[in-house]
Amino acid sequence: MEKIIFQGKSEFQELLVFESSRHGKVAILDGCIQLTENDEFAYQEMLTHLALCSIPNPKKVLLVGGGDGGILREISRHSSVEHIDICEIDKMVIDAYKKFFPDIAVGYEDPRVHVHIRDGIAFTNSVPEGTYDVIIVDAFQPMGPIAEVLADNCFLESVAKALRPGGVLSAPADSLWHKNFVVADTIANCKKIFKGSVNYAWTTVPTYASGVIGFMLCSTEGPPVNFKHPINKLNPEKNGVAKGPPKFYNPEIHAAAFCLPSFVDKVVDPIRY
Amino acid sequence: MEKIIFQGKSEFQELLVFESSRHGKVAILDGCIQLTENDEFAYQEMLTHLALCSIPNPKKVLLVGGGDGGILREISRHSSVEHIDICEIDKMVIDAYKKFFPDIAVGYEDPRVHVHIRDGIAFTNSVPEGTYDVIIVDAFQPMGPIAEVLADNCFLESVAKALRPGGVLSAPADSLWHKNFVVADTIANCKKIFKGSVNYAWTTVPTYASGVIGFMLCSTEGPPVNFKHPINKLNPEKNGVAKGPPKFYNPEIHAAAFCLPSFVDKVVDPIRY
Repeated sequence: MEKIIFQGKSEFQELLVFESSRHGKVAILDGCIQLTENDEFAYQEMLTHLALCSIPNPKKVLLVGGGDGGILREISRHSSVEHIDICEIDKMVIDAYKKFFPDIAVGYEDPRVHVHIRDGIAFTNSVPEGTYDVIIVDAFQPMGPIAEVLADNCFLESVAKALRPGGVLSAPADSLWHKNFVVADTIANCKKIFKGSVNYAWTTVPTYASGVIGFMLCSTEGPPVNFKHPINKLNPEKNGVAKGPPKFYNPEIHAAAFCLPSFVDKVVDPIRY
Repeated sequence: MEKIIFQGKSEFQELLVFESSRHGKVAILDGCIQLTENDEFAYQEMLTHLALCSIPNPKKVLLVGGGDGGILREISRHSSVEHIDICEIDKMVIDAYKKFFPDIAVGYEDPRVHVHIRDGIAFTNSVPEGTYDVIIVDAFQPMGPIAEVLADNCFLESVAKALRPGGVLSAPADSLWHKNFVVADTIANCKKIFKGSVNYAWTTVPTYASGVIGFMLCSTEGPPVNFKHPINKLNPEKNGVAKGPPKFYNPEIHAAAFCLPSFVDKVVDPIRY
């Protein structure tokens, strides 16, 4: 830590932003690393495009959480998208990112973005059934509420209802290296609610615990979605409000994210063993 | 660190073995983590099988370094292999692993293994041209001599000479997240010497710096080798001296290891951009 840039406390959480010697600016929410400037793109790009590149012509997208704006920046690359709702409960997070991380909060500059300062569960419950093609839940806290979000059947059910048939959910999930790897439970839980397909993926993010992050990709009953083979390619010349093409995501790394080490595959897909 | 198990100093290096609360037993060579019991299999399996599964019927294999025995354990799974030379300079390492890491040093129990306590460069120089199908260099030290080994043209040339036409080298390489990412130089260097193909791969190993490790996979002029599509599948019922099937390696994760994030792919394969 070289220099503290911001310390703030809202009614929901505490945010600390500091300049580091090795990772650029770092944001800490309630004591957990939320992101660092040097590797945020890996998580933001994968969480977004694993969903949006898996279906043809996504038009309406809901982001729950993700107040930093990085996921909005990534959604912005998709020219088929007509409407983006973001539901973030904590205005302090939005304001701080706009001030201290302009290359991430740039996502808010997309005119398709509509900001709702509200509780994500209440908001998701309030929209008509079948509203969205894609819902991205960006409520990541290492070791923390990931499992809770994906174990909250009420929330998952309202997500599934808010999606159109064959619509998709993308959400962070446990690292495959976590000792209390709960992905089997998460998958079992998601399978109760998402009747299309339920998949686990992962990628490298060095500042997260164990150096990797997991993702759950689920679809509702309807036109089938094969997440492992992206059908909606990004156009590297259309980047929306993002400055330049993706740094991490490409169709090969998309497919690779679903290839699992055997000790994980055994848990995720026990029938194969 | 819960309890120090072994501290030793040979004429080459210092080895420290301790019991940790989260990673099982940990081995430190000259101050750098060499391996931990909980994740050693990821590195050992990938370094071995990315090479051995890419060619048909490997018969003669040389391991340079790798005194812990884990790579030997992995080679042992290949029933086509007839002869395995290991050239390890430091007998202290071998003895310590046999004593404190029996599940790793079990590799020495394979009767095809021939141990040579010698300098790896001198040994490689001393064998007749075209002796081996596969040479594995296991001289990994994070941040350290990786680049040096792969930048040592004399050593690389003697490796290439010791391989048969279409024979393959597997060696660890820099993490794709290292700030001074030297893989472009390493690749350029390897391309001068290995006239078959030269490839960069990676996988997740949480206890290494940045949570990933890179691999260089190179082949000599001769029958072409397409590392990205393994043709030599492991038989899960034939595990040699290893106790049970691989925990990490499978053909999908083999192929995925060669899929690179765009910021790496641009450096490794600039012609595509």
